[in-house]
Amino acid sequence: MRRAGVVGLGLIGGSIARELAARGGRVLARDANEATLAAALREGVVAEPLGDAAAGEGLDVLVLAVPVDAAPGELARAAAWAERSRLVTDAGSTKQGIVAAAESLGLRTFVGAHPLAGDHRSGWASSRRGLFEGAPVYLCPSAGQDAAVLERAVEFWRLLGARPEVMTAAEHDRLLAWTSHLPQVAATALARALQAHAIPRARLGPGGRDATRLAASSPAVWTGIALENAAALEDATRALEERLHELRRALAERDAGALHRLFEEGHAWATAE
Amino acid sequence: MRRAGVVGLGLIGGSIARELAARGGRVLARDANEATLAAALREGVVAEPLGDAAAGEGLDVLVLAVPVDAAPGELARAAAWAERSRLVTDAGSTKQGIVAAAESLGLRTFVGAHPLAGDHRSGWASSRRGLFEGAPVYLCPSAGQDAAVLERAVEFWRLLGARPEVMTAAEHDRLLAWTSHLPQVAATALARALQAHAIPRARLGPGGRDATRLAASSPAVWTGIALENAAALEDATRALEERLHELRRALAERDAGALHRLFEEGHAWATAE
Repeated sequence: MRRAGVVGLGLIGGSIARELAARGGRVLARDANEATLAAALREGVVAEPLGDAAAGEGLDVLVLAVPVDAAPGELARAAAWAERSRLVTDAGSTKQGIVAAAESLGLRTFVGAHPLAGDHRSGWASSRRGLFEGAPVYLCPSAGQDAAVLERAVEFWRLLGARPEVMTAAEHDRLLAWTSHLPQVAATALARALQAHAIPRARLGPGGRDATRLAASSPAVWTGIALENAAALEDATRALEERLHELRRALAERDAGALHRLFEEGHAWATAE
Repeated sequence: MRRAGVVGLGLIGGSIARELAARGGRVLARDANEATLAAALREGVVAEPLGDAAAGEGLDVLVLAVPVDAAPGELARAAAWAERSRLVTDAGSTKQGIVAAAESLGLRTFVGAHPLAGDHRSGWASSRRGLFEGAPVYLCPSAGQDAAVLERAVEFWRLLGARPEVMTAAEHDRLLAWTSHLPQVAATALARALQAHAIPRARLGPGGRDATRLAASSPAVWTGIALENAAALEDATRALEERLHELRRALAERDAGALHRLFEEGHAWATAE
């Protein structure tokens, strides 16, 4: 990856830029926040701004690392670069919208991606090398995609240390509603229940702090994700409500056997290999 | 603390025993599991079994570190020791039951305690020195308790590194329903929702693993806690269901403004000092 473009220098884009620069790549970047781009240039991570003038030279890879609701617009905006890039990929938490956008733009070098890295932190200041080491990355090809392009995406994400797994965008979004979006909703709901009861986070022990940590995630990023995956996330949220209701019924009935069974089932899941 | 008795060598009791022994105390202990007691003797943490024959010599402190549903019975069983001890305390996650048991036994040296330390792990193998360093410990005196006894409890828990805070057993149990028992119920419900949808924990990212970590807690311990604090925990669980329902309604209506506000409120709570 001699020449790479990165749009968005937050936790994910910043970490990608650091990794590529450290491996000798020349990183061109853009960020909505001028101060962030200036910092990345000053630190020597980014070599030059990603401006339209130099698009003609093309890139080995162009990565979109912006909130999912901004991604289709950024993809259209970066079209001049994208057409001259060997690979265009992204890192958003939902995949149907961006893959559809790439298909409608006729962008045959785009492979949607979602690395399962990062946490509740965000921003350039949190970005770091090694973020993707050992992390799964889901790759979602467009309809009828050239196998050679998909192979480039596999190689790119492996270079960052991630472990690629290919699935369709629809499969991805259904899966992530459960594995990622539901835990986020659970943490936010728990935080709001505590807030409404005037319980500050400082009152929680280590376990409660773990359970609510995700509530600190970026509200703007998560509004976009929740909207794009609303139908699947509704189903998952309803399932969680039902499980809570089951626990509450066992509490109301002071049913030791039922409570033990419910805790035991959660325990078995949480301690399985 | 020259002579200390510890009943139950799990994560909490084991860590107390290690701390006291490391500070030169002579630790006598009992555990329902013979192999655990044998290990603690072999490691030199426990000096001798806590047997009834030697009760006459008395103890500086006797600590009950057993599940909350076993604690009143253990307190009665240890009465011979307890009467000859300068301080009797415990470490259970609910306080009304054990404080009432001590009052009905007429045990004037008992001060209920709950250190906010430990996590989803349990057992002697997880116990360690330093577990209580900087952790809050709630102390719940009995009705009409002698101030000198309470002062001994404050000193004992400070010796372990904890920061004592005094409140009534009723206040404690209402507070903990929210700060500790509700996060446990939330994690268990989330684990069960994922299990029912055939999602293994290995599919989760770092944030989802945080959110479900507590589900690995001991089912037996938590059945006891949930039953003892059932009424308060029912209320807290209902509040969480309502917050989830609110998020689900915003999803169903694709209401970006409402979703952003809900994520923002959770974020504000989670990032407040």
